[in-house]
Amino acid sequence: MGNKYIYSFGNGKAEGSAGMRAFLGGKGANLAEMSNLGLPVPPGFTISADVCKYYYENNQTYPAELSEEVGKYLNRLEETMRAGFGDTKNPLLVSVRSGAAASMPGMMDTVLNLGLNQATLRALINKTGNERFAWDAYRRFISMFSNVVMGISRDKFEHEVENIKKKVRVKNDTELTTKHLQELVEKFKDIYKKNTGENLIDDPRIQLQKAIDAVFASWNNPRAIKYRQLYNIKGLPGTAVNVQAMVFGNMGSHSATGVCFTRNPSTGENALYGEFLINAQGEDVVAGIRTPESISNLQKEMPRIYNEILRYKDILEKRYKDMQDIEFTIQEGKLYMLQTRNGKRTAEAAMKIAVDMVNEGLIDKKMAVLRIDPQQLDQLLHPIFDPKAKKVVIATGLPASPGAATGKVVFNAEEAENLAAKNEKVILVRKETSPEDVAGMHAAQGILTCRGGMTSHAAVVARGMGRCCVVGASDVNVDYKSQRFSVNGKIVKRGDYISLDGSMGEVMMGRVPTIEPKLSGDFAVLMGWADEFRKLAVRTNADTPEDAVKARAFGAQGIGLCRTEHMFFGEHRIDFVRQMILLAPEVKNLKIRIDALQKELENAPKEKKPELKKELAEVKEAFKCPNMLYTKALNKLLPMQRGDFEKIFKAMENLPVTMRLLDPPLHEFLPHEEKSQKEMAKKMGMTLKSVKMAVSRLDELNPMLGHRGCRLGITYKDIYDMQVRAIIEAACNVKKKGIEVYPEIMIPLVGIPAEFRLLRDNINALAKTIMDGKGVNVKYSVGTMIELPRAALIADEIAKDAEFFSFGTNDLTQMTYGFSRDDIAGFLPDYIEKGILENDPFQSLDQTGVGQLVEIGVKKGRSTRPDIKIGICGEHGGDPDSIEFCHRVGMNYVSCSPYRVPIARLTAARANIQGTETSSTV
Amino acid sequence: MGNKYIYSFGNGKAEGSAGMRAFLGGKGANLAEMSNLGLPVPPGFTISADVCKYYYENNQTYPAELSEEVGKYLNRLEETMRAGFGDTKNPLLVSVRSGAAASMPGMMDTVLNLGLNQATLRALINKTGNERFAWDAYRRFISMFSNVVMGISRDKFEHEVENIKKKVRVKNDTELTTKHLQELVEKFKDIYKKNTGENLIDDPRIQLQKAIDAVFASWNNPRAIKYRQLYNIKGLPGTAVNVQAMVFGNMGSHSATGVCFTRNPSTGENALYGEFLINAQGEDVVAGIRTPESISNLQKEMPRIYNEILRYKDILEKRYKDMQDIEFTIQEGKLYMLQTRNGKRTAEAAMKIAVDMVNEGLIDKKMAVLRIDPQQLDQLLHPIFDPKAKKVVIATGLPASPGAATGKVVFNAEEAENLAAKNEKVILVRKETSPEDVAGMHAAQGILTCRGGMTSHAAVVARGMGRCCVVGASDVNVDYKSQRFSVNGKIVKRGDYISLDGSMGEVMMGRVPTIEPKLSGDFAVLMGWADEFRKLAVRTNADTPEDAVKARAFGAQGIGLCRTEHMFFGEHRIDFVRQMILLAPEVKNLKIRIDALQKELENAPKEKKPELKKELAEVKEAFKCPNMLYTKALNKLLPMQRGDFEKIFKAMENLPVTMRLLDPPLHEFLPHEEKSQKEMAKKMGMTLKSVKMAVSRLDELNPMLGHRGCRLGITYKDIYDMQVRAIIEAACNVKKKGIEVYPEIMIPLVGIPAEFRLLRDNINALAKTIMDGKGVNVKYSVGTMIELPRAALIADEIAKDAEFFSFGTNDLTQMTYGFSRDDIAGFLPDYIEKGILENDPFQSLDQTGVGQLVEIGVKKGRSTRPDIKIGICGEHGGDPDSIEFCHRVGMNYVSCSPYRVPIARLTAARANIQGTETSSTV
Repeated sequence: MGNKYIYSFGNGKAEGSAGMRAFLGGKGANLAEMSNLGLPVPPGFTISADVCKYYYENNQTYPAELSEEVGKYLNRLEETMRAGFGDTKNPLLVSVRSGAAASMPGMMDTVLNLGLNQATLRALINKTGNERFAWDAYRRFISMFSNVVMGISRDKFEHEVENIKKKVRVKNDTELTTKHLQELVEKFKDIYKKNTGENLIDDPRIQLQKAIDAVFASWNNPRAIKYRQLYNIKGLPGTAVNVQAMVFGNMGSHSATGVCFTRNPSTGENALYGEFLINAQGEDVVAGIRTPESISNLQKEMPRIYNEILRYKDILEKRYKDMQDIEFTIQEGKLYMLQTRNGKRTAEAAMKIAVDMVNEGLIDKKMAVLRIDPQQLDQLLHPIFDPKAKKVVIATGLPASPGAATGKVVFNAEEAENLAAKNEKVILVRKETSPEDVAGMHAAQGILTCRGGMTSHAAVVARGMGRCCVVGASDVNVDYKSQRFSVNGKIVKRGDYISLDGSMGEVMMGRVPTIEPKLSGDFAVLMGWADEFRKLAVRTNADTPEDAVKARAFGAQGIGLCRTEHMFFGEHRIDFVRQMILLAPEVKNLKIRIDALQKELENAPKEKKPELKKELAEVKEAFKCPNMLYTKALNKLLPMQRGDFEKIFKAMENLPVTMRLLDPPLHEFLPHEEKSQKEMAKKMGMTLKSVKMAVSRLDELNPMLGHRGCRLGITYKDIYDMQVRAIIEAACNVKKKGIEVYPEIMIPLVGIPAEFRLLRDNINALAKTIMDGKGVNVKYSVGTMIELPRAALIADEIAKDAEFFSFGTNDLTQMTYGFSRDDIAGFLPDYIEKGILENDPFQSLDQTGVGQLVEIGVKKGRSTRPDIKIGICGEHGGDPDSIEFCHRVGMNYVSCSPYRVPIARLTAARANIQGTETSSTV
Repeated sequence: MGNKYIYSFGNGKAEGSAGMRAFLGGKGANLAEMSNLGLPVPPGFTISADVCKYYYENNQTYPAELSEEVGKYLNRLEETMRAGFGDTKNPLLVSVRSGAAASMPGMMDTVLNLGLNQATLRALINKTGNERFAWDAYRRFISMFSNVVMGISRDKFEHEVENIKKKVRVKNDTELTTKHLQELVEKFKDIYKKNTGENLIDDPRIQLQKAIDAVFASWNNPRAIKYRQLYNIKGLPGTAVNVQAMVFGNMGSHSATGVCFTRNPSTGENALYGEFLINAQGEDVVAGIRTPESISNLQKEMPRIYNEILRYKDILEKRYKDMQDIEFTIQEGKLYMLQTRNGKRTAEAAMKIAVDMVNEGLIDKKMAVLRIDPQQLDQLLHPIFDPKAKKVVIATGLPASPGAATGKVVFNAEEAENLAAKNEKVILVRKETSPEDVAGMHAAQGILTCRGGMTSHAAVVARGMGRCCVVGASDVNVDYKSQRFSVNGKIVKRGDYISLDGSMGEVMMGRVPTIEPKLSGDFAVLMGWADEFRKLAVRTNADTPEDAVKARAFGAQGIGLCRTEHMFFGEHRIDFVRQMILLAPEVKNLKIRIDALQKELENAPKEKKPELKKELAEVKEAFKCPNMLYTKALNKLLPMQRGDFEKIFKAMENLPVTMRLLDPPLHEFLPHEEKSQKEMAKKMGMTLKSVKMAVSRLDELNPMLGHRGCRLGITYKDIYDMQVRAIIEAACNVKKKGIEVYPEIMIPLVGIPAEFRLLRDNINALAKTIMDGKGVNVKYSVGTMIELPRAALIADEIAKDAEFFSFGTNDLTQMTYGFSRDDIAGFLPDYIEKGILENDPFQSLDQTGVGQLVEIGVKKGRSTRPDIKIGICGEHGGDPDSIEFCHRVGMNYVSCSPYRVPIARLTAARANIQGTETSSTV
C-alpha cells in the first residue's frame, strides 16, 4: 500500500474496493465497492487501518504526512459536495465511524453531524429552513461527541432529556419544540464543560481530529481487546476510520430512512425484507419510537425509489454473491446507500438462500456448502422454544446438549423412570450424574446439574442421547433430602414445572411452549452437495440399536464408537453386571491360590504333602460357589449383549461398527448409597457388610487413572471374553441371514504394545473357535483407542499390531492437560475469565498441545502401517474446528453423536473445499 | 567368526580369549583366557553361541559341518589327555556345561563324568584302583544325565538314595559302601528306563550329543525366557557349550576341591578368602555335608599349591583388573583352575577394593567409579538387620524405602505421635496413608501399608524422610475397628512388636536386632573421585531444615524440591491451614458478588438503586467475618512458613533452593472422618454440618487431575501471595545476616503459558515491594515444573517466560501412562507377571514413552531459552537408570531424597564416564 493512507469513495467511483477489507475495514471497503458499482453513496473517504497500526507502533503518533492528506481529501469532499467544512453559508457536515475488517462491538461507534457549531448551525437553519431539525441535529452531535469522543457517560445527557420531558409533560423526544431543544443544547454544553473543564470544541477540523483520535484509541480499549480474545480475532492491523458526508432522512415527507435484507433472513424467501420510516433518522428506526413500515409499503409510497432499491439488490447480490443487509436514506426524494454487508440469517434461511442461489446461477455448489455455518445446523435438528413465549430465566449453566425441554422436577433417576412410564414429562435435576442415572436420564425430557463441565458425565451422555441438558448451573443448590432446589432466593420443589434451553444454558420457571422446526427439502439438497465434496467419512457414536437407526437416517457411514458397557444398565442386567463385578476379584484370587498350592504341592517334601492337600481341597471347595455365581452372571449377560449387537449390526448393514470393550472402572457400576447396597445384598444373598467391603475394595483415589480400560481385560479375561464372544456370535448370526457386517473390535486405553498384543491374541483365538463352530467367516478387525499420551508417542509400535486407531480425545485431553473433566468446574470459570483458556478444551480440541500428540500418533501410526484406518471418537468429533483439524492431519473419519452427524458432514466438506482451493468469497 | 564354530582351550593356550564372551559365554571365554595366561586348566573346547543362534534360526538343526568339527576337537582332546572317549583301558571323561555371556540360572547347568558306561567304569576302577570312587562317579553321572538331559525329576533319584540310607541306617551319602552304590546304579537305570522307555545310553558320543542338544534346547525354555525378560537380557545370540576333561578332587588325601575369592568379598581386605575340602568333589562343598576348611589352612596343608594359587591370583587380577571368584580342583597333588569370574561383593568391600586397586596401580579412578554399583550404596546408608538374627517373615510387600525398623504396632498417626513422645518405638500400620498421617509417619520407626505402589503417598513420603517403609503388603488385612491385622492366618494386635526390612519388603514377627554399618574412609575417597568426573549436579528433595542439613552432609548441591505445603502439617499449623482452606472459596465468592453488585449498581436505573444498595450492604456485612478469619489464618501461617524458610536458606548457604508453591488439592488437608470433623468444627466455631459441606465441596472425583497446582494459585491468589511473601521475606532476612541465598520459586502443574505468566507477574510485583521495603536485593528466579504432557509439548512457549524447568516425572508418568500411582496396585502385579511391564514405571523412568516427552521438553525449552536451567525432581531423580537418562538428555541437575544423594553422585559420574569414552572393562 506504500504510503497511501486515505482512500476516497462516492460519486460513482472509489480508490478502494471490496477486496481491501483488511485495510479499509468492512464498512469502508463496501462503501468503496458500492461507489464502483455506480450506486449512490454519500461521498467520503476512509483512513486505512495501516494508520492504526502505525499509531500503536509509534507511541500513539501519526505518519508525518497524514494531517496534510486528511486536509487534501477533506477539500476534495468539499468540492464534490459543493459545501465547506465550517462554512457559514453552506456547511459540510460529516459522520465519523470506526470500521475494522471484523465487526467489533467493543470499539467506538459513530459520531453524526460533525462540523456543527453556532455558526454552521445558523447556516443549516438558513439552508434548510427547518430550525427544529437543525437544533435537533446539534444536540445529537453534542451528546454523541461528548460520549463517544470525550467519554462522558450517556446517562448524563439522557437525564437532562428526561428532566425536560417531565417538565413540559411530554412523552417522546419528537414532541420537544425548538425552544426545548435549544435549552437542551445549553445543558449539554454545561455537562461537557463540567466533565472536561473546557468549552465544547467549535472548530470542525479539531472536532474531526478528536474523533479520528478516538476511533484509533478505541481499537485497544479493554472491551475491544476482550472481544477480540473472546472471538479469536487475530492478525488485523487495526481499525479504519470512515469520514462521510451527512445525508438526512428527516428533512420532510420526501425524506426517509430504512434498513432491509435482500432476501428474507428468517425463511430465505427471495424478496426484499425490511422496514423504513418517513421523515426520520437512522437512530429513530433503531430506537423504536415510531413503528416503522414494512418495506413492501415503499412500493406504494415511493415506487421509483423502491424499484431503484430492487435494481441495487440485483447488482449487490451479483457482486457479493450473497444476501445483503443494507441501510439507506432518502433525502428529499434522492436515495443514498449508506451500508451493505452480508446479512445474518437463520439456518433455515441459509439453506434456502444457498440452494436458490445455486439454482439462480449466482454461486456454485462448493460456495453453497461454504455458506452454511455448521454450528447453525443445530437449530434445525432440535425442537426450539417459541421465540414469542415469555421466559423467566432463574439460572444459567453450560449449554451441554441442545434442545428445549419442559417437565416436572424430579431429583432421582428412579422417579424419572416411574413418572415417564406414566407419560409424565420430567426434568431430572442432580448435583451431578453417574452411570446409575442413565436410564432415568433417558426417561427425562432434560437434565439439569449444578456441577460438571461440557464433558461431564451428564453432558456426554445427554449429548449422545440427544437429550436437552444444562450442566454446571452453580447457582442451583440441590437439597435431595427436602426434595427441592433453591436458586437466587427462589425455591423449586419436586413436581414444579421448569423449562431448559439446552442451546442457551437457560433454566426457566414453568412451562415455556416449544415449536418443532421442519427440515426443508433444501437441507437434503445441500447435505447431498456436502457429501460430494468431503473426503472425511462421518460415523456416529451409538450405544443402542435406536441410536444406530437414528444416526443412519442422519447420514452416518458406520459406528465409530459403540460403548458396550452402556447396555449394562438395562432392566435386569445391572444385577448380573454387579454380580460379575463383585465376584471377579474373588474368583481370580482363589484361582491364583489354587495354582500356587498345586505348584507348592508338587515340589513339597513328602511330610508336608498331606497338609497342603487338605488346604488345596479347602480352597477348591471355597472356590466352587463364587465361581458358579460368577460364571452364571457371565452366561446371563452373554445372550443379552449378543442380542443388542445383532440389532446394531442389522441397523448398520454393510457399514463398519466399532465396538469398544469394557472401559470404565468397575466401581461405576456398583451402588454407593447404603439403601441401594442393602437392596443389592438382598438380591445377591450377601450381607450388607460384605457388599460394602466389595464396593470399597474397588474404590480408587483417581478412578480415571486407575483400573479401567484394557487393564480390566488383562486382569479379568473372562469379562472381555464374554464381550468378544457376544460380538462375534452376533456377527455370525447376522451374516448367516445374508446381512453384511464389519465388526471392528476396539481395545480401550492401550499404552503399552504388549497390552494390545495379549488381548488381540485372545480375541483372535476366541473368534476363530466361534467362527469355526458356526461355519461362518466374519471379516472383523482389531484396533485400539489412542487416548493416552504414551499411546500417541509410541503409535509406531502399536500400529505394528493394531489394524485401526481411534483417537479418544476426551481422555487424551484429560491426560495431556491433567484436567479431570468431572472436576474442571472448580477452576475453569476463573481460567476463562482471566483469558488463560479461550474455551473448554473438552469442547474444542486443543490443537496446540493435544493436537501435537494427535499428529504424532497419526504420523507414527502410518509409518509402520501405511494403510491403517484412523478416526476420532471423542466428543470433539462433532465440533467443527476439531473436525477441520482431523481433516488436516489426514484422518479417515470422525465419529460423533447422532445429532451432530449432519454438522460433521458439512464441516468435512467445507474443510476439504477450503483445503484444496482458495475460497472465492469476497 | 566365519564358519569356525568350536574353540579349544587348555594346555597353556587357547583359540579364544576373554574378549569373545559374546560367542564363548562367560565361562568359555574365561577358561580360554586362563589357558592363554598359562594357568593349568583341564583342556576342552567350547561350541560357540553362534551355533545356538543357527539352531533356532534353522528349525533346531545344526550347521552341516558341526558334527565333524566336534569329532575333530574330541580327537584333539583325547590326544592331549592321552585317553580315549569310550576307551576301555584309559577312558576320557568330560563335563558338559552351558554358558552364555550373561549368567542365567534358568538354563541347563552341568553334567559331570560323561563318558561312563559299564566298560569305561571298569577301566576307571582299574586305572584308579578306587572302586567306590568309580561307582560313585557313575551313579552321579546317571542321575545328572537323567535329570538335566532327559528331564526326569531329581526327586525320583533322591528318593532311592533316601530309601537305601534308611534301609542300611546311615545318615550321609559318604557312608554308603561300594555295594550300596552298585545297588543304587541299578535302581537309577530302572528309573531311567521307566521314564524314557529306553535303556540308559552307553555310547559316550551319543551321551555327548544328547547333552549338547539339551544345552541348546535349554536356552529357550520358559524359565530361561522369563529370566531374560526379568533381567532385561537382550541381544545375545544364545548359549555356548563347554566340553571339558574331568579332573577329580576326590582321589585321595592329595586331592581336594575349593572355591575362593582373591579378596575378601565382605570387607574388601586384600587376602585370599574361601574354603576347600580334601578328598572331595565340587558339589560336596556346596552340599555342606562336611564342613570345609578355611583357605588359609591350605597354606599349612599344601603350601606349594597355596603359593601357586597366590601367584595365579596376581595374574588374574592383573588381567581382569578386578577381584576374582575362582574354583579349583587338586587332583593327586596337581592344581587345576576350573573357573574364574568377577566376584560379587558387599558395598563396603566394593569401595575398599576399588580404592585399593587404584592405589596398587591396577585401575584408574574412572574405572574405580565404574566398579561401584550405585544401587548397592543403599546398603551403606541405612542400618541393617543383623544377618545372623533369626527372622520369621509373615508377609512381603514392596520395598518402598530401605531401612530396618522394629517397633510396636499402632494403627493411627496420632497414637504413633503420642507413643513416640514417650520414647516408644512404633511401626505405623495403615491401609494407606494420607497427608494427615505425615506427623505420625515421622514419629514412627517404619511404615507398613497394605495398599499402594512404590510411589504411593506412603512410599514417597517415607523415602523423603528416610523412614523404613513397606507398602502394598496385600496379605495384610488391617481392621482398624478391632485394632489388629491378620496375615495368612496370624493375628497381630496393637502393641505387638514387628520388624520391617525396607530393602527386602519383608514384615517379620517380633524384634529383630539391627546393626549400624559405618561409612569407611574409602567411601569418602571414592565419592570424591565421582565428583571429579560428573557433569550433572545433584540436589536434594528436602522439605525441612533437618533434611536440608542431612542432604548437604551427603553432598547435595542445593535443594531441587522443597514442598512448601509439607510444613503445613506441623503442630498448631494444620488448624490455620484448614481455616484458610475452608474459608477461601467463601471469601472469593463473596468478593465476586460484591464486585458484581457494585457494577450492577452503577448501571442500574434509579428506581432499582435502593434495593441494590441494601443488598450490597448485606453482602458486605456477610463478607466481614469470614474475611477476617481467612486473613487471620493467612497472617498466622506467614511467620511460620517464613521461619522454616529462613532455617532452610541458612542450611543451604550459597546453594540454590527450589521452593515449590502449594501443589496438592486442598481436600488433602481436611479431615474426612466424622470424629476429626467434629473436633475441627469445635475449634473453628462452625457447625458439624457446615464443616461437612465445606469438606464435600472440595471433594473431587479425580483429585490428581483436579483443582491443584498452579490452578490453586490462580483461583486463590492470597494463598500463593502468602507463600511468596514468606519466601522472599525469609530470603531478605537471611541475606541481611550476610548469608548468600538463591531462592528459585517454582510454579507447579503449569500446562498453559498464560498460567505461568500471570503467576510470575504476581510474584515479581510482590517480591519487588518486599525487597524495596527491606532494602535488600535477593537474586531469585521463577520457573516451573514440567509435569503435564502438554507442558513438555509446548515447552518452547513456556521457556520464553520460565527461568528454569524441573521435570516432575511422577506426575508426568501418571499422565502419560494414565496410571494413578495410588491405584496402580490393582493391576500392576498382573502386568509384571504377564511381562507387560518390566518394572513399576514410577520407580524407573519409562524412557520409551515418558522419556520422549522429557526429551521434547528439554529440546523445546532450550530452543527459546538456550541457558535455561533444567533438572528433575520426581522420584526418578534417585534411580540410577533414570539419572543416566537425565545425563544423556542434557539436564543440569537431578534432585532426589537425601539418602539417595550419594547414589546420584556416583551414577552421574558413571554416566559421564561411560558417555565420553568407551569403557575399558573386560
